[in-house]
Amino acid sequence: MRLRFLWPGPTKNADVRGLQDQYLRKIGRLATWELVETKGARGLSESSAAKILDIEAQGLEKHLANDYIICLFDKGKEMNSEELAVFLDTVTGESARPIAFVVGGFLGLADRLLRKAQTRLSLSRMTLSHELCRVVLLEQVYRSLSIMKGRRYAK
Amino acid sequence: MRLRFLWPGPTKNADVRGLQDQYLRKIGRLATWELVETKGARGLSESSAAKILDIEAQGLEKHLANDYIICLFDKGKEMNSEELAVFLDTVTGESARPIAFVVGGFLGLADRLLRKAQTRLSLSRMTLSHELCRVVLLEQVYRSLSIMKGRRYAK
Repeated sequence: MRLRFLWPGPTKNADVRGLQDQYLRKIGRLATWELVETKGARGLSESSAAKILDIEAQGLEKHLANDYIICLFDKGKEMNSEELAVFLDTVTGESARPIAFVVGGFLGLADRLLRKAQTRLSLSRMTLSHELCRVVLLEQVYRSLSIMKGRRYAK
Repeated sequence: MRLRFLWPGPTKNADVRGLQDQYLRKIGRLATWELVETKGARGLSESSAAKILDIEAQGLEKHLANDYIICLFDKGKEMNSEELAVFLDTVTGESARPIAFVVGGFLGLADRLLRKAQTRLSLSRMTLSHELCRVVLLEQVYRSLSIMKGRRYAK
């Protein structure tokens, strides 16, 4: 399974980055992964929301080609961890395409990216901080891989 | 608003603890909080699940008195962040009791604690690692307090 994780701008919070690295290492034992931290939209105030989303979408789109795209979206499809494992297993079984998880910046993702996604996945009905969202995603992907491999994974 | 956070055993992962401290500091600007890290059940294997849950429940119960108890439970009630803010505001308006958020250990919470809770709250349909769960809870509580106070809070 080839997994790709894409988001605009590097993770700034040192502790979040620490957790991100820990989960990526664990994922690396079970699958091939690539992290693409694209250029974030800088120097624009939140009043330029549409522009920020457009710039970030352009940066992300450059790195999306033949992937099965999963955009994170709080109003997307909710799954429990077992359902996510089955879902990822099914996607992998149907195609050799890499699976690309796309996480938005602090304003989320542009509509056109959400429309482009094969799946819009919600980690929680709650709005998570965009950096924390990265870690929760990685933890869930690791959990899913562990479930798939039938490994025991500490809760 | 008086908020209490209770869970068995101190947070071990240094990065998770770092995030926990960051969110507690932020919460402290908007509310009074107390963190109670009770004694975790040590030296028992997962095959003694019932015993672990019982020991951890005893430790938690000692610190619960007159609180409005919210137990975290993945099959509990889901809310979005705005609904959580309204909910916490309502609970606070109805009573001066502290609000106690109780988070389980790696096996979750004993049934008797779940039954004792006034509310069982789900942060996600997915099973989060019990330490990550602490951070997601604190982030959501901070977000709710910010929503209540009408403050802008970075997403």
